[in-house]
This record gives sequence, C-alpha cells and structure tokens, in this order.
Amino acid sequence: MAEVLPLDEDVDVLVDRLARAGRASQRVLARMSDAEKAKALMSAAASLRQHAPQILSANALDVAAAKANGLSGAMVDRLRLDEERLEGVAKAVENVASLPDPVGLVIDKSSVPSGLEMVRRRIPIGLIGIIYESRPNVTADAAALCLRSGNACLLRGGSEAVNSNRAIHAALVEGIEAEGVPGEAIQLLPTQDREAVSGMLRAAGLIDMIVPRGGKGLVERVQNDARVPVLAHLDGICHTYIHSAADPEMAKAIAVNAKMRRTGICGALETLLLDANFPASGAVVGALLDAGCELRGDARAQALDPRIKPASANDWDTEYLDTIASVAVVDGLDAAMDHIALHSSGHTDAIVTADEAAAERFLNEVDSAIVMHNASTQYADGGEFGLGAEIGIATGRLHARGPVALEGLTTYKWQVHGTGQARP
Amino acid sequence: MAEVLPLDEDVDVLVDRLARAGRASQRVLARMSDAEKAKALMSAAASLRQHAPQILSANALDVAAAKANGLSGAMVDRLRLDEERLEGVAKAVENVASLPDPVGLVIDKSSVPSGLEMVRRRIPIGLIGIIYESRPNVTADAAALCLRSGNACLLRGGSEAVNSNRAIHAALVEGIEAEGVPGEAIQLLPTQDREAVSGMLRAAGLIDMIVPRGGKGLVERVQNDARVPVLAHLDGICHTYIHSAADPEMAKAIAVNAKMRRTGICGALETLLLDANFPASGAVVGALLDAGCELRGDARAQALDPRIKPASANDWDTEYLDTIASVAVVDGLDAAMDHIALHSSGHTDAIVTADEAAAERFLNEVDSAIVMHNASTQYADGGEFGLGAEIGIATGRLHARGPVALEGLTTYKWQVHGTGQARP
Repeated sequence: MAEVLPLDEDVDVLVDRLARAGRASQRVLARMSDAEKAKALMSAAASLRQHAPQILSANALDVAAAKANGLSGAMVDRLRLDEERLEGVAKAVENVASLPDPVGLVIDKSSVPSGLEMVRRRIPIGLIGIIYESRPNVTADAAALCLRSGNACLLRGGSEAVNSNRAIHAALVEGIEAEGVPGEAIQLLPTQDREAVSGMLRAAGLIDMIVPRGGKGLVERVQNDARVPVLAHLDGICHTYIHSAADPEMAKAIAVNAKMRRTGICGALETLLLDANFPASGAVVGALLDAGCELRGDARAQALDPRIKPASANDWDTEYLDTIASVAVVDGLDAAMDHIALHSSGHTDAIVTADEAAAERFLNEVDSAIVMHNASTQYADGGEFGLGAEIGIATGRLHARGPVALEGLTTYKWQVHGTGQARP
Repeated sequence: MAEVLPLDEDVDVLVDRLARAGRASQRVLARMSDAEKAKALMSAAASLRQHAPQILSANALDVAAAKANGLSGAMVDRLRLDEERLEGVAKAVENVASLPDPVGLVIDKSSVPSGLEMVRRRIPIGLIGIIYESRPNVTADAAALCLRSGNACLLRGGSEAVNSNRAIHAALVEGIEAEGVPGEAIQLLPTQDREAVSGMLRAAGLIDMIVPRGGKGLVERVQNDARVPVLAHLDGICHTYIHSAADPEMAKAIAVNAKMRRTGICGALETLLLDANFPASGAVVGALLDAGCELRGDARAQALDPRIKPASANDWDTEYLDTIASVAVVDGLDAAMDHIALHSSGHTDAIVTADEAAAERFLNEVDSAIVMHNASTQYADGGEFGLGAEIGIATGRLHARGPVALEGLTTYKWQVHGTGQARP
C-alpha cells in the first residue's frame, strides 16, 4: 500500500478508465436512499477507527519523509496524524452522515395550461475531482461530502501525504463496500505524476466538476488549465469598512478579530477601510498595531499613527495571509464601495456601522460572494454558516458561491408529468 | 449605421473595452428596481415600433444580400422581418417586462448559534455574452432577458443579419436610455470579424457567461474554445420509450407528435425505443411511416414493418433534425434506460406508460436535464414550461439545466447580519 505506483499507462487512458468506473458507480449511488448513504458513511467512519494502526504507521512514513526533505515545522504539523486527530477525522465523517441529504428534494413545482406538471428535483452532479495538498484529512472529508450528496469522487492528494492518503482511502473503501456502495465511488488516483493532474483537468465530459483545495499556486494552475468547471477561490482579499456611524468598541473588536484571530485563512481581513468621519480611527489602528499587526497605509491613514508604514500600489491587491494589513481612509460609503469594487477578490467584505440604511446599501451593492454587517470576516466558513461542513469557498459567479457544502454538490433535473400531451 | 465597421483595434483590447463599459453599466442596473427595469423594457419595445421603418429597411438590405449570396429560401425566411414579425419582437420584449423579476428574491435564510443571520439573495450574474446566428429577433429577445434580470449583455449576431441587428440594437439603446438605463447595458460588437468572437470566448473574468444560440457548428466552436463558462446544449438526441404498459393510442399520438410536429427543433424525437412486450409496436411504427417518417431500425424493429431500413451503429448517436428516426426494440425498462444512458445527449427523454412505478423509476434514474412521462418531447421549451421565455436550453450539469430563463441568469450572494460578532 505504501509504495508510489509507477505510471504504467498513458495519463488520458488512466483518467478515462477511472472516470468511467467512477461514473458507473455513481449511477448505483444515485439510486441509493438517504438512509443507505448515511449507513455507508457510518461504516466508513468505523473502518477509519478500525484501521487506525495502519493509517498512523503510514502517516509516520510521510512525516519522516517530510522531515528528511526539510519541510517546515508548520507543514510537518499539518501532515501529522495522531489518535486524537484521526478520531476527529472519523467524527467528521459521522457528522457528514448526519447532515440532511439534499438529493431528491423538490426545488419547485408548477402546472402549465397544457396540463403538464413540472417538478424541479435535486440530483447529484456526478463525478467530482478533488485536487488537494498536504492535510490527509481532506481525503475523508471530501469523499464523505461527495458520497452524502450521491456523487462519486476521484481524489488526488499531495505527494507529501501519499501513504496517509492511501491508507485512509483503503479504509473508506472497505467501509462503504461493507454497506453495498461500489468501492469505485471513492477513487484515489494511483499515481503522483503531475501529468495525471493535467489529465484530470482536461477530462471535460468525464469529470463534472473539479474542486482544488490548497495554496494559491495549486488553485491558479487548476483555474488556468482546467477544461472541467472549477469550484474554488483564488484569493481572499477581504475588506472591513468602518463606517462613520460605527460603534467604536465594536469596530475595534471586529477589526482586530478579522485580522488577527487566524491570519492564514481566506476570510482574514487584508484591507481596513476607515471612514474619514469615523471619530475613533486612531483607536482602531492602535489596537491592531498593539496586537502585533504591521499596517501599511495611505497618507491619511499614516497620519493616524506614526507606526503605520507607507503602502505601495500593490498593497491594495495583496493577500498577506500574515500579521500585515493595508489601511486606507475613505470619504464615505460610496468611496468605500468603489475601493472594494476595484480591489476585492469577491470573497468576503464587511461593513461596521450602526446606520441600517448604510448597511443595507453595502450588503446590496458590494458584489462579493459574502457580504457582512457588524461581524468579523473570519466567520466566512461553512461550519459557521450552519452548513455542517464545506467542500470549499467559491468566488466564481455561477452554480454556487461562498461556502459550498452538500447543496453545492447537487444540480437538478426537470421531471415532467403528463397525461398524454402532444404539442399542438 | 448600415456599414460593416472595420476592426481598427486589437480584438482583445476591443473586448476588454466593451466588457469594462458593460460591467460599469451593470453596476447601475443592479441597483435599479423591478419597476424601473420593466419601464425601460416597455420603452425599448416602444422604440422598436417607432423605428420600424429604419429596422425594416435595414432588414431589406440583409435580405437582398442573402439572396445575392445564394442563401437557401429557409435561411432567407428566417432572416426576413415584416411589420407583423417586428410587432411580434416588440410584444416579446413587453412580455419579458411583465415577467417577475428574480433579482433580490430571498432563496433561504438561517440563524446560527453565533447569532449571525444569513440571507441568500438572488443577484444578477453580471455581463452575459450572446453569440447567435441569422434570426435578428434574438437581438431583442436576449437583450430583454438579460436586462430584466439586471445583467448587461454583449451581443454578437451573425453577419447575414448585421444591418437588422444594428438597427434593432440602436432602437433598444434609445429606448432604455430614455428611462435612465446606461446604453452600455446592451452592447453589440461593432465588428463581424470572427476573431472578435474568439476574443469574447477567452474573456474570462470580464464576461461572466456565454450563451451561444445557433447551429451545432457554432455551439461546438464556442464550447471547445471558451474559457468563459458556457450555457448551451450541443445535441438534442431525444428518446421516447414506449413501455409494455403504454396505452397504444397515447403511444402512437406521442411518438408521431414528438417526431413529426417540427423535426428541426432540439426537443424532437430522434430515437424510438419499443418495449419487446408492448403489443402495439407495429401500429406505432406504422403511424410514423404513414406520416412520412423514414425509420432505421435494429433487426427486431425491422421485423415490425418491411418499410423500416436497417440502422447503422451511427444512427443511435445521430440528431437527424429531419423526418428520420432510429427505432430499437428493448427488453424492458432497464434495457431502455441503459440504451438512453449510452446514447442520450442529456437533453430530453420520455417514457410512455400507464405503470406509475415504471414511470417513477424512469424519471428518477434517467439522468437528462428533462425527463417526461406521457408527454411529447416537443414540449421541451421555456414557454411551455411556464417560464415566459427562454435564453436557451442547457445540457451542462452545473448552474442551470433544461429551459433557462430569468432565474438562470441570476446567481446569489450571502448577506450576513451581525451584532458585533468576533469569532472565538
């Protein structure tokens, strides 16, 4: 199980073979009931626990290789599994099993003058490709979300976690097969050859959607090269605008939390916009600086605190993912929204204000996947949105936006009920 | 207005310039109310009527050129406008104005333990590219659907209708501008250079979605070359399966209607599947043959009537769009669904049966955008589905499927209402 298999067939032939097997298994999955899919996932979680020794020893190989290859401590930590973390992975699969199954739900119904009755019903998308890096828990998370929503998946994890991913995958397959789900519903690409990723990206018509999960380099490559539709976000250049009518204490608490709670996540604040008429801007930037954040400001922002460095033109389009933020002073709501329209990556943008009319304009006119009023952008997360989990956050404009969970892994069909209608 | 403008700037520069102007106008449009957009469309319809002389004389130029270029009578007829047809175009715009505006509708709302309230609200997609052929009425239809749903559009019509399209476009712009909508909300590509179409297709991030309307060659080119998401169908290889429990008279009426009512539309029957246990197969194929349809059958179908020609392997994957159909005899529901899974283009497939359980299985398990029970596949049309109009029929799996009208031209955003939440 632990060795890297050689690529002994043409990449397109390999992807074609795996995709066809996945699609065939998906036809079986699409016919399974809510309860049957939930039971298969509970069995997969049990299998993860049962195979803990194999998974942890496979993971130990990956961790040793990562250290030998000089990966950073943070990278090695993201890779590492222990009994507690593996229990968390199994629990997450059980949590997905407990989420409501969207498949079969009626979106709407209508009758038309011809007497036909139309029902729009949710169905699985089909075969989902997941391309991800380092964290081996994605193997189980992504597979569980796909299976819960009736989709087959083709997984391709990072090379640094190859042994862990194979062990987790084998356990999942054993678990679902015990409950009658074809093992091909969860497939792991049997090669780490990068060319195989390209094969997945060009498999339009065979793979229905690709979800990349990882750093910007990975997402950028996938978005540039894919012929298959991609669900993803590239950047999280998130703005928080402190309106003139913001409560000063709330503004301070939200700005510090949005930037500093976790700086490496896509929902972290990257640019703070301070209204020229907000009276407590000095206190807000002071709190950020005191919390250890480097601030880079325009001339008016720099005048607020001598510790603020000058911003360059690039700063307004930079996702720092670090204890750094850019700060600008803007003249009112429209100027703030103009700045956001120019520089936002369409992920999450927030306004802090006690003025409901200003908030309503911001929520309606800022064109990002998530717009927030009086809340930290760090809440941009499927779990916090009550979705139970997420396959990712999307900033594209079609199909699904913002946090995407089970519903975003479905599409619909029109079911038409007639009584013999021939069209005049 | 009538001359073909030379392409005097680089195609990508041109598309970039038009797309940016369209996007800027769309921000204005996105803020307009239901009533304002409806009023602008009524004004556009009035302007079409007012400019009838200019539109009809521009159209006469196109018709004369088409005849001089030896276009077929059917092509020339599709191109031709007269007062009655132009009145139909104006009425269609008014009809779109009367449809309910999807923008701003709440898809769902939820509260989460943190106290945040999430509202998913419908918003326009942004800038839609429409690439179409011959029929000049598409200029008005597509522009009206886009504007009604708050989208700007960039239109590129066929060369044979260039004068008609420019005259209709000028009238529409005059009409919407009179009601305060920026004219750039409806733009017509000012060149017929084919390279400009390529420029539109690669304008990912500038154009949000492309809708091709026209023949298979056009759709195929758009689907193959586009980096922008495409909403379309390539083929309509529609099946009608006559189950063993079908009412013989209904089966005959539906089969003849599905094939013969209009053979050139995407919802026309191309393959008839007859259950081996259906007792009246001879009558059904006889009715089709008597109606002037050529049938190409497998060996068992050929045994039903000596007039049935042998089918080749290609016939099962052919969209005839003509008075020709393929016919196969299948052993039961599963064999019918297997045939459809192999050969359907995912557009519209139907079952005729009095057996509700068989119908339910067919509607649930056949994986096409539209599945029908006891109705002619010729009903596959946005108007017949009660959508009031359609921008097209989509066979892709993401975003929107089947007949697509206003809702399919929208997406959503998450609006999050907080009371000062900072994430723990």
